[in-house]
Amino acid sequence: MSPKHTRRRFLQATGLGAAALTGAAAAEQAPDAPNKPKAAPKLTLGLPTYMFKNYDLGQTIAMARRVGVRRICIRSNLLPLTATAEQIAAAMAKLTAAGLTAYGGGVIYMRSAQQLERAFEHVKAAEYKIISINVSPALLGALERKVKQHDVRAAIHNHGPEDRNWPTPQAIYEKVKKLDKRIGICHDTGHTMRAGVDPVEATRKTADRIYDVHLKDVDAATRKGHSTELGRGIVDLPGILRVLRGAGYAGIVGIEYEKHMDDLLPGLAESVGYARGVLDVLG
Amino acid sequence: MSPKHTRRRFLQATGLGAAALTGAAAAEQAPDAPNKPKAAPKLTLGLPTYMFKNYDLGQTIAMARRVGVRRICIRSNLLPLTATAEQIAAAMAKLTAAGLTAYGGGVIYMRSAQQLERAFEHVKAAEYKIISINVSPALLGALERKVKQHDVRAAIHNHGPEDRNWPTPQAIYEKVKKLDKRIGICHDTGHTMRAGVDPVEATRKTADRIYDVHLKDVDAATRKGHSTELGRGIVDLPGILRVLRGAGYAGIVGIEYEKHMDDLLPGLAESVGYARGVLDVLG
Repeated sequence: MSPKHTRRRFLQATGLGAAALTGAAAAEQAPDAPNKPKAAPKLTLGLPTYMFKNYDLGQTIAMARRVGVRRICIRSNLLPLTATAEQIAAAMAKLTAAGLTAYGGGVIYMRSAQQLERAFEHVKAAEYKIISINVSPALLGALERKVKQHDVRAAIHNHGPEDRNWPTPQAIYEKVKKLDKRIGICHDTGHTMRAGVDPVEATRKTADRIYDVHLKDVDAATRKGHSTELGRGIVDLPGILRVLRGAGYAGIVGIEYEKHMDDLLPGLAESVGYARGVLDVLG
Repeated sequence: MSPKHTRRRFLQATGLGAAALTGAAAAEQAPDAPNKPKAAPKLTLGLPTYMFKNYDLGQTIAMARRVGVRRICIRSNLLPLTATAEQIAAAMAKLTAAGLTAYGGGVIYMRSAQQLERAFEHVKAAEYKIISINVSPALLGALERKVKQHDVRAAIHNHGPEDRNWPTPQAIYEKVKKLDKRIGICHDTGHTMRAGVDPVEATRKTADRIYDVHLKDVDAATRKGHSTELGRGIVDLPGILRVLRGAGYAGIVGIEYEKHMDDLLPGLAESVGYARGVLDVLG
């Protein structure tokens, strides 16, 4: 029996039945028995939003609700970095009204000191606690000062073989491991695969600095690899999720699907379903 | 590492790389090493077609292709039982041209001797090797003669608490266990749950006579339960798939989703993705 259903069975056996499932979250918060080893936190799905670049915020919200994912990471296509405080408040209110939460912002590009400055003005206004970023290596010192100043986690996103600075999680790890711990990695598993690097191994080797995940499948382990529905490509997604689970990863697992970007919903739904299926077995 | 990806890793390690993945089926057919226990057959997904009742055959084919499922079970909404040989041939040609296969027919209702007669005329013309059916218990003798005559498997579909004859797999099992082995069960896991019976236990107890599966999730274990996206309801789908896998089930696992039947694709895609995710971990 899957772990989720063991819990359900308990609820049924105690006569609470299906109607009590909304109380499941409360049950999960119950203190463990004294000698029971503390279980790793369950992984929570989210949606990065580059893939919604052909849709507006309202359409994005509708799709997130349809696939039952409540956490989204806001990118500039949905809310520009130049947005006013009023525009930010309006976007957040729209999310809240739909039962969604912005779990962070990004991917935000910081290729100059000016861009970095503007980015953190926005981060402060939007009250993000985590952002995924692309940053010029020369700006790492300035970045470090900013993450301390605002107490924000900045997860550098690896972009595969075309990205000279940040092709893989390992490349990021080498450059950030001695910096403030608020600087880490947003592991894009598809781009790691496209760089010819095993994303399971990459996750294992850098897990302590992975703060965000773009869970993506691709159809080839070369720069010609393209995003595909999760489970249909060559990335060992169950292996990655197992390592994250084992490492006690407490961030969001963002589902990314970029194949049919003008007709996103079916492939996005399939990808979210795939991740849920894997997680229901892993527990 | 998931079993699927172990195989992929092997292909990569041998230098065959991603381009050789199309040879994976051949690799699976390779003879086992002498002392290796024979692995249970992998489960294959399919699509029953009641859920497409608001769509025609062309639209059904397009959706099946979009979610990457190649086996469909033809129901009368797509091809009437009164279809001529030419109409049957045209429908099958349409499937073949799209790379799909009709793995069988049904659910076909046989509530009178006349309906049973007509049904088997159709089965013969369509050359089905398996059908899912609803049949009056009084006709079981006639059914037994027909399945022998045509050498066709007939899987009686359980329809939950409203079905006086066939609410659960166990109810079917009791009535067919002494009949010809070609008569068995099409286990609809959602209807079993709606009957208040544990679908995992039902699968375990009747596995040797389960010839078809409608893998369905529902939101309550009562007659008021409704179909929902796989993984979002209360049915322990990983548990069912694990039992089927362990029992060496060689039939099709049909994915059923009946929530948004006027806008089927997103929920269907999510449900197919979910089943794939579970199976990728189970191996």
